[in-house]
Amino acid sequence: MRRFVANRLVKTAAAASLFSSNKTTTTTTSSTPLLSRFLTSSPPPNPIMPSHSITLDFINPKVIECEYAVRGEIVNLAQKLQQELVDKPGSHPFDEILYCNIGNPQSLNQQPITFFREVLALCDHPAILDKSETQGLFSADSIERAWQILDQIPGRATGAYSHSQGIKGLRDTIAAGIEARDGFPADPNDLFLTDGASPAVHMMMQLLISSKNDGILCPIPQYPLYSASIALHGGTLVPYYLDEATGWGLEISELKRQLEDAKSKGVTVKALVVINPGNPTGQVLAEENQRDIVEFCKAEGLVLLADEVYQENVYVSEKKFHSFKKVSRSMGYGDKDIPLVSFQSVSKGYHGECGKRGGYMEVTGFSPEIREQIYKVASVNLCSNISGQILASLVMSPPKVGDESYESYTAEKDGILSSLARRAKTLEDAFNGLEGITCNKAEGAMYLFPRLHLPEKAIKAAESAKTAPDAFYARRLLNATGIVVVPGSGFRQVPGTWHIRCTILPPEDKIPAIVERLTEFHKGFMNEFRD
Amino acid sequence: MRRFVANRLVKTAAAASLFSSNKTTTTTTSSTPLLSRFLTSSPPPNPIMPSHSITLDFINPKVIECEYAVRGEIVNLAQKLQQELVDKPGSHPFDEILYCNIGNPQSLNQQPITFFREVLALCDHPAILDKSETQGLFSADSIERAWQILDQIPGRATGAYSHSQGIKGLRDTIAAGIEARDGFPADPNDLFLTDGASPAVHMMMQLLISSKNDGILCPIPQYPLYSASIALHGGTLVPYYLDEATGWGLEISELKRQLEDAKSKGVTVKALVVINPGNPTGQVLAEENQRDIVEFCKAEGLVLLADEVYQENVYVSEKKFHSFKKVSRSMGYGDKDIPLVSFQSVSKGYHGECGKRGGYMEVTGFSPEIREQIYKVASVNLCSNISGQILASLVMSPPKVGDESYESYTAEKDGILSSLARRAKTLEDAFNGLEGITCNKAEGAMYLFPRLHLPEKAIKAAESAKTAPDAFYARRLLNATGIVVVPGSGFRQVPGTWHIRCTILPPEDKIPAIVERLTEFHKGFMNEFRD
Repeated sequence: MRRFVANRLVKTAAAASLFSSNKTTTTTTSSTPLLSRFLTSSPPPNPIMPSHSITLDFINPKVIECEYAVRGEIVNLAQKLQQELVDKPGSHPFDEILYCNIGNPQSLNQQPITFFREVLALCDHPAILDKSETQGLFSADSIERAWQILDQIPGRATGAYSHSQGIKGLRDTIAAGIEARDGFPADPNDLFLTDGASPAVHMMMQLLISSKNDGILCPIPQYPLYSASIALHGGTLVPYYLDEATGWGLEISELKRQLEDAKSKGVTVKALVVINPGNPTGQVLAEENQRDIVEFCKAEGLVLLADEVYQENVYVSEKKFHSFKKVSRSMGYGDKDIPLVSFQSVSKGYHGECGKRGGYMEVTGFSPEIREQIYKVASVNLCSNISGQILASLVMSPPKVGDESYESYTAEKDGILSSLARRAKTLEDAFNGLEGITCNKAEGAMYLFPRLHLPEKAIKAAESAKTAPDAFYARRLLNATGIVVVPGSGFRQVPGTWHIRCTILPPEDKIPAIVERLTEFHKGFMNEFRD
Repeated sequence: MRRFVANRLVKTAAAASLFSSNKTTTTTTSSTPLLSRFLTSSPPPNPIMPSHSITLDFINPKVIECEYAVRGEIVNLAQKLQQELVDKPGSHPFDEILYCNIGNPQSLNQQPITFFREVLALCDHPAILDKSETQGLFSADSIERAWQILDQIPGRATGAYSHSQGIKGLRDTIAAGIEARDGFPADPNDLFLTDGASPAVHMMMQLLISSKNDGILCPIPQYPLYSASIALHGGTLVPYYLDEATGWGLEISELKRQLEDAKSKGVTVKALVVINPGNPTGQVLAEENQRDIVEFCKAEGLVLLADEVYQENVYVSEKKFHSFKKVSRSMGYGDKDIPLVSFQSVSKGYHGECGKRGGYMEVTGFSPEIREQIYKVASVNLCSNISGQILASLVMSPPKVGDESYESYTAEKDGILSSLARRAKTLEDAFNGLEGITCNKAEGAMYLFPRLHLPEKAIKAAESAKTAPDAFYARRLLNATGIVVVPGSGFRQVPGTWHIRCTILPPEDKIPAIVERLTEFHKGFMNEFRD
């Protein structure tokens, strides 16, 4: 056997070095499995598996069902084109890929907030805190803040697992930040710090969904984390449609209709997801509307899952962000009255620290027994990363008037937010200036979700290409211009309507070129397909 | 309604401020729900929910079933005692809590590796990289490494989401580290960087388990992450018992017996979990044994899930760590022959960077279609935290001979590992010196798992206290000495045997006191309960 094994080694090592993740072909075959079976005295292989590798029917069908368009097919194509531009400059009619597919500001050159990064660096390497050179490199308040934070961590150990809900002192800071924002008390014991908001959403879905009979009301269009998480946990997404005609309005009558419809199908609706400001739709809810939503959840006994990660991203003076907790407390509802979870993230806002994976959920209105279950699930993963925890505390407690960093912090923050507002307006106007495209106002968040009123001929062409019309458009746009957007079908939409999601994040100096390329492409597209 | 609401506000705000996570009583009642129902025109509440809060039957029973002892009941008691020591010094017969329950080295004063923290700090705040003061604060090779890493990150943006498998350049570095360790090629496309090893384990369980009919072979005793994850995903844990009499030996005959037993119950076994070095058992597998395990998985068509997070933690000269990938490749099996996942973490080893939540899994032997599914699941959470990713690359590529930090790095590393070896031996000897306790050799990992041969009277006393005998012992130990260990029942064990898991992590200068307190307690315990 040894000799045979040695021969095989040469062959398979070569095969392994050729193997490359999602790009490998499956044609390689080998005679070894049969021989191997012949040579061992073990029982025959498990009949559900082919001899050389397990196949798709081996794995959880819920995983196969799940979809996540933000990093899907179009993005894979973009990465391929990007590589081609490197390998063969001039091979495409553009010289760079412009990623407008994902809310990832720092990948598009947005700079981090200096104060936040100073504190993180000092907490990573506290040994330099009392060195004299450090005074020259770091602001005085970042040094002071780092000391404060370290003093909140048992043993000042930023490399230790923390409490599974997050470091208590940091939760105190965040709770104070929520109180300052809302004007209502917040309890640090209600906070669960997480690696970004996504794991928090998964945790709640895991808690609420036990089978296909459990439903979660989700806006359509929705951020595909929700459909993916519901699919992975084997539940039912109960859609409610936002009304594009009224600026993506959320109608209570629609909620009621869909809830009744789900009930009639034997689905127990457990929770209502609201994304405010909206993703991918960019609207900001009016407070009156939020009150109606709270009443609806209260009356129907639903958990309100409030995705509030874009709370800092409001670009129009006539709208303001109000947390659902503030709204429900201002209506007089206390902790016992309504189960409410608010998700927040360090990835969005003006800071955009996506790579740091920080965030939290504020969990109110659950009984102690259920909280214990949430705590248990959190504890299985031990804790979220400490840098992300620290950053979450900084985001909810930035420099204040009088702090050395206050002025630079404010300048950085205002610079980013005002630029985002300008970019949103420019792109919104650009879309609205195109034949057959209508685009609602970008009131908040980081996205536009323009509707494509495509000519019949384009829809037919998409059909022939076996793809959704909006995916067809997005693919054409990418191939022609290097601009990456996500087809609306990845977010779901009213059947028969077509959209794309386009972020407002490319650097401001690139926006004119994007508008130009987009306009030129769109004209050509319409000329090609106009009915 | 306004006035009523204002009244209620006062009441509930006060109630909210009293509310405190896992400690709240459920006795508070309020008349508001009925009134609220009366005041709104909404339909009556969902009949499965009580009017003031949802109850346990509202949530996923899989969550309720799941257990995680490492942060369970005994730890909650420890935290309570710790608070009592603060509030009322002298209230207990000890003055500090000694946490021997969790592999969390830096919480027990282990210092981080300086080079690693230097690089992390510089990557967090790259603005200081070219300042002159930085030269005085950081080693030359940490500055150079930070530049290298930043150059591997598109746009040097450490605050951006990365590729969902992790930053490509960092995966290249890790793959090179694996190659250097194993002497066989590693492909960066096979690596999925994760927030510690736990999310990677969950990802694989999610992939492999679709129902109670899907089984995962797990060692008993096991690290409760596995039982928790299998429970959360609704699968069946198929136990195989490690043989305590042969130093926690892993017998293939036992694997076969349990596999056949599971099959006869209609369970399809999908994978075999092996933890090497062992947790909680501390054994290191012999290479010959590993070869047999590989042949078993190959013959039975099982996915081999190799938990190799303690690969740096081997304390005896007669044993060496060999990765399962190295073993399978040295047997001549190539990528197509055996589906194998190796888990690695930055939390263990000599570095013990638990709070940084870094790790990876190396996924080999799966078809491209399945890899695509794994990629999709990874992409739903976007990416793992970048500091953790950077740290994973540092762990797999530490300073080399000639680098400025090499000497200090080696001194720090060797100091930690040799101290751990001494602590392991001292505690092992101490346990073996106690009446009715036997303890296998601590060959590796961070734990001892001594067996308690408890007197019948103690077992009866535990029964009267409605608790497992080992939990009874652990609780007594904690109340008498402040030493926190985890009862063996949290890891499962041969029925009728009782154990505790005790880490070897307390600072070396505290070990004598721990041994003394433990010995004294144990004598008293035996005197009290001796048959």
